Amino acid sequence: MLDLWYTENHTDSVRFSIKVKEHFHSEQSPFQKIDFFDSEEFGRFFTLDGLMMVNEKDEFIYHDMITHVAMATNPNIKKVLVIGGGDGGTVRELTRYPHIEKIDMVEIDERVVRLSQEYLPLTASQLTDPRVTLYFQDGLQFVKEAAAATYDLILVDSTDPIGVGEGLFTMDFYQNCFRALTEEGILVNQHESPYYDSYRNEMKRAHEKINGLFPIARVYQFHIPTYPSGHWLFGFASKKFDPLEADLEKWDALNLKTKYYNTDIHKGAFMLPTYVREALKGNE
Amino acid sequence: MLDLWYTENHTDSVRFSIKVKEHFHSEQSPFQKIDFFDSEEFGRFFTLDGLMMVNEKDEFIYHDMITHVAMATNPNIKKVLVIGGGDGGTVRELTRYPHIEKIDMVEIDERVVRLSQEYLPLTASQLTDPRVTLYFQDGLQFVKEAAAATYDLILVDSTDPIGVGEGLFTMDFYQNCFRALTEEGILVNQHESPYYDSYRNEMKRAHEKINGLFPIARVYQFHIPTYPSGHWLFGFASKKFDPLEADLEKWDALNLKTKYYNTDIHKGAFMLPTYVREALKGNE
Repeated sequence: MLDLWYTENHTDSVRFSIKVKEHFHSEQSPFQKIDFFDSEEFGRFFTLDGLMMVNEKDEFIYHDMITHVAMATNPNIKKVLVIGGGDGGTVRELTRYPHIEKIDMVEIDERVVRLSQEYLPLTASQLTDPRVTLYFQDGLQFVKEAAAATYDLILVDSTDPIGVGEGLFTMDFYQNCFRALTEEGILVNQHESPYYDSYRNEMKRAHEKINGLFPIARVYQFHIPTYPSGHWLFGFASKKFDPLEADLEKWDALNLKTKYYNTDIHKGAFMLPTYVREALKGNE
Repeated sequence: MLDLWYTENHTDSVRFSIKVKEHFHSEQSPFQKIDFFDSEEFGRFFTLDGLMMVNEKDEFIYHDMITHVAMATNPNIKKVLVIGGGDGGTVRELTRYPHIEKIDMVEIDERVVRLSQEYLPLTASQLTDPRVTLYFQDGLQFVKEAAAATYDLILVDSTDPIGVGEGLFTMDFYQNCFRALTEEGILVNQHESPYYDSYRNEMKRAHEKINGLFPIARVYQFHIPTYPSGHWLFGFASKKFDPLEADLEKWDALNLKTKYYNTDIHKGAFMLPTYVREALKGNE
């Protein structure tokens, strides 16, 4: 029996390992190393430069939480920009809202999209929805060139702030997102994790920048076991709508079936442990 | 350089590994294998039969959440029984409440307590509080023999339902807890985790039993990165007080400094993901 393990170093001295049934694809794209695997516990998954991005077992958690919190906060979102998200899971969740008119997705690496379409139909199946336009280019450049007040919602579904994802954690990027958003605009972005030092530092840096820019800047958490520490965060930055003041009954009335998100967890996710709260305030 | 790793199998095909600086104690007690380690990332930690119990980095999460949710729900708790909890962290948090009069701790394995007192003063330091009485005996037997209506709160700080912890997940045990509790009594117990199959099955079994016994039976969650999946649960079973209806201002007025618990997360922790909610209802 083949005894093959994929291992991710969560810190220099913490490792998470998954038994692999098959390492069935590997390539170097112009941007990064892409590897696809099959496993007993998590089904299919892929890594970018050796880091787990998406797997069939818990992708629903990430994609529910990046999408539905904003969609429930403002039930009139019509134009959405997704930056990154090459696996298609975020777009899949967005396409479930009939009132969304336009979804632009900007993914720097076309190969991630094409391989996901081939190997991960679970997440990539809705990329052919007629409302979706795919742009294979740099997200930072794309928002810089976007007309002001174009989008009601921007979802930043990026890697960590190393390699290709780095620009998506800069002040320049956040400012351009602000400009590209309508007056009711919401930005949801990758916010890393509070537990291990290197991730916590990125969390604090991201929050500090966004907090200075948007009238409302909150952070919410969720449990995603395959990410470092299993405790992951998104930032919720908003020009007008406060997610904790939202009337959530309209979302319930849509009758969308979700496996992680619900309108109770919508509120609960913003209730952060004291140590996370303090770190976000810079008190440590 | 010594390259030494402690590895825990979270499932047959998922492993979590910690680089160890020193494996400084190992013994077989009458009940289990006890091992103490020192590590860069988590400081000191110990394992029972190879499973991580407590470490210096995230013990505050577990001990905050097992203790303060009940203490804030009923600010008049005076008599407490702790079952298990040999590291002393649960008792440490309880001793911070001046109005608690009596804390009985029943730990089957005296060696866990003595080794924690020697090697983990961070958690074990308050076991000498004059209100604390230590009983080194079987928790199941202890509650069976306890007089009715003795305790306002029972905290079950146990291992998983294998080996010595098994009896603490039985109907017999829960019934005896019910009997030993006052009319205002609260039982907080280990509730495992929703994510990996074997843990989810134990979560469902525990909830089903308790739900049939107590008028109020809720489940709450927290992020503890070193436990399997990082998504862990406690059960909150209660004869009278609903934690979601509690007046939490009195707890805030106590001015206890905590690193994880706060009165927002008190509420947020009960807001469960849909897949967890459904599993607890038996809908799967």
